[in-house]
Amino acid sequence: MTTQKHRVVIVGGGFGGLSAAMELKGADVEITLVDRRNHHLFQPLLYQVATAALSTSEIAWPIRTILRDRREVRTILGTVMDIDTGARQVRLEDGTVVPYDSLILATGARHAYFGHDEWEADAPGLKTLEDATTIRRKLLEAFEAAERTLDPHQRAALMTFVVIGAGPTGVELAGAISELARAALRDEFRTIDPREARVHLIEGADRVLLNFDKDLSAYAEEALKRLGVIVELGENVSEVDKDGVTYGGKRLEAKTVIWAAGVQASPVAKWLGAEADRAGRIKVEPDLSVPGNPEIFVIGDAATIAAPDGKPVPGIGDAAKQGGRHAAKVIKARLAGDTAPMPFRYKHLGSLATIGKRAAVIDFGWLKLKGRLAWWVWGLAHIYFLIDAKNRFSVALSWLWIYLTGRRSARLITQGPAEKAAPLKEVTKAEG
Amino acid sequence: MTTQKHRVVIVGGGFGGLSAAMELKGADVEITLVDRRNHHLFQPLLYQVATAALSTSEIAWPIRTILRDRREVRTILGTVMDIDTGARQVRLEDGTVVPYDSLILATGARHAYFGHDEWEADAPGLKTLEDATTIRRKLLEAFEAAERTLDPHQRAALMTFVVIGAGPTGVELAGAISELARAALRDEFRTIDPREARVHLIEGADRVLLNFDKDLSAYAEEALKRLGVIVELGENVSEVDKDGVTYGGKRLEAKTVIWAAGVQASPVAKWLGAEADRAGRIKVEPDLSVPGNPEIFVIGDAATIAAPDGKPVPGIGDAAKQGGRHAAKVIKARLAGDTAPMPFRYKHLGSLATIGKRAAVIDFGWLKLKGRLAWWVWGLAHIYFLIDAKNRFSVALSWLWIYLTGRRSARLITQGPAEKAAPLKEVTKAEG
Repeated sequence: MTTQKHRVVIVGGGFGGLSAAMELKGADVEITLVDRRNHHLFQPLLYQVATAALSTSEIAWPIRTILRDRREVRTILGTVMDIDTGARQVRLEDGTVVPYDSLILATGARHAYFGHDEWEADAPGLKTLEDATTIRRKLLEAFEAAERTLDPHQRAALMTFVVIGAGPTGVELAGAISELARAALRDEFRTIDPREARVHLIEGADRVLLNFDKDLSAYAEEALKRLGVIVELGENVSEVDKDGVTYGGKRLEAKTVIWAAGVQASPVAKWLGAEADRAGRIKVEPDLSVPGNPEIFVIGDAATIAAPDGKPVPGIGDAAKQGGRHAAKVIKARLAGDTAPMPFRYKHLGSLATIGKRAAVIDFGWLKLKGRLAWWVWGLAHIYFLIDAKNRFSVALSWLWIYLTGRRSARLITQGPAEKAAPLKEVTKAEG
Repeated sequence: MTTQKHRVVIVGGGFGGLSAAMELKGADVEITLVDRRNHHLFQPLLYQVATAALSTSEIAWPIRTILRDRREVRTILGTVMDIDTGARQVRLEDGTVVPYDSLILATGARHAYFGHDEWEADAPGLKTLEDATTIRRKLLEAFEAAERTLDPHQRAALMTFVVIGAGPTGVELAGAISELARAALRDEFRTIDPREARVHLIEGADRVLLNFDKDLSAYAEEALKRLGVIVELGENVSEVDKDGVTYGGKRLEAKTVIWAAGVQASPVAKWLGAEADRAGRIKVEPDLSVPGNPEIFVIGDAATIAAPDGKPVPGIGDAAKQGGRHAAKVIKARLAGDTAPMPFRYKHLGSLATIGKRAAVIDFGWLKLKGRLAWWVWGLAHIYFLIDAKNRFSVALSWLWIYLTGRRSARLITQGPAEKAAPLKEVTKAEG
């Protein structure tokens, strides 16, 4: 009988969980990676699925395929229900029990509605592939219903799109929706002119892209306006319902509202019975372990840790990756008998956001780029970071096609009922 | 005030409806095309979406994009509720009324369960993109659940796949599932060996591909067996439930059953109050019009018409295309004042089916091909028939990738709850 190897369980196959698994390559451990999805998702391009530029399979890969050559890694499709920190076991919804010696929780965050969960039905957020296809369906169905209706008020509300929150996701979504209407859908309708669509980007702060340099925020705002986006700053939304939004005492009738304003950590705190901040994030030790449970690490969007200079670590993919690598290094050091403190030092490599198909802003700190050159750097960087060669070709082809023809190849309305529009009297006569 | 042009309404944007619209190009008519989907679907490759080889957007195109340059064509996303043949109006679910002078019904068929509609929940068929992603999810989840379970009976049932019906769809599905298990999933699991999956193809007739030449049927059966498919002929299924199927007094425990055994026309007969055969198809006149309603045509899978030699017209895409073109020609002739009878003459160009990634059978009548050459002809023909250059590139790239690496790029489990597997005691120890 052989000695049981040190068992590392990783929950979550996103940027953080996968980078922890990568960093543990060659270590004398057995790894179990649990995710409730079978795929790793390249979230930075999710907004392009939501706006019909890319298809779902272009930005997602089966986690087991990524880890197929790592014989010591077992991948399990399952949903965590609870963690028994005493018995050191992760319990899944189907009753499966996964024991661990070290545990890395990399479960990310969902969008949050600041105490207004009832807004979710009318203002979906964008975190999963299903979120993306839901938003895509809502966007495309709004134009379809606008084409059918003869009621001008109804039509105006159907052709008004609201994005709440002007961080990178909100900015990228608003720009892409405006391009969808102005370029991809052009010439395809007979009653409406999709170019008349109004896209509102509503933000509580006084500028877009709050985490970027002020010059870049100003540039991004200009670029959005050039695309026809109506940027409304310093506005807090007080009401969202199926017919529109209310903010600053104003009412805007809009059938399509998308939420990009806030996130809430996955329920790690509940599983652990640990202390969390208002956004549900666990306050971890400097080495990313949970206070009182040094064998448990929380990384990425599920954790909060102050950087040495006092700035919080941002909720971006690269921070999760660095966290995952760090947790793995701490585990390896401990296995080697090294118990010296290993505080996590986040290194901010840069922030990127794109506005439509010819503009982007990049803030590397030491270098700030904007405009067309930034867009090329953004595009190449994103293609480079995709998981495999097939997807790099495929995304490059999709982008080239859109660039050359303006047509988007993933304009599918799938899954879910079509919205009802107001009845028409005589459709074929309506064109006049 | 101008005179009202002749109004042609086409219901259905499949092969039949689109080819009617194409044939009407240049005619002095106004066209309205109604479909409850926003996309045209290239159904011959749907089984490849179901088996994770292609993504949804590679075989579907927005109908309005296809018709964007035809200013006289209006596309409406809507579901037909009823047809008022007296008032000559198509009524949509949302109350929209679409008046017509000529009407072409090209609404196709759904799968049918021979009076056992209750089987649908456990044995989905394959007609729409949602059907394909549902089957894909079921296939992939079965392997995931088999990997989790420790119960050998449960595991065997999870790794048993049944395809009912050995026409082209059933044959292609069975071959592709076997390849998915033997090539694409290989080396990715730690408890199960996906190559141990058993794929049963059950057929009531005494050979597969009944519409093909007998030699080709025999070759296809051999090719299926080489891929590991268990072909069971002369067997009628008497029971389907969530745990398996019963046929010929035998019981087969199988968690994944797919239905490819029969179709039922869409409810055209109900809309029209017209006579239909047992499969719901309208018996049309030789010119494809409805008896008593010469201004209404029914084409493709929704109609039944005997060919001049007494053979029925097969339910394949090319027959629908020919029917669509014919109905359009009759309408044009009538507008030109030509009322001579124009009987539809179906010309069978050929039957194609593929078995896995290196074999196919092609029956052109004057030429019969099988084996690797047939597979290349099949592949090139299908790429040629795709709608646009982007999709031709994209499908060719996906196939090349699978051919070279064996990996399938669309292995996504999306939309819908994961199935529950039997609980495990200790997952990480189970590997031994």
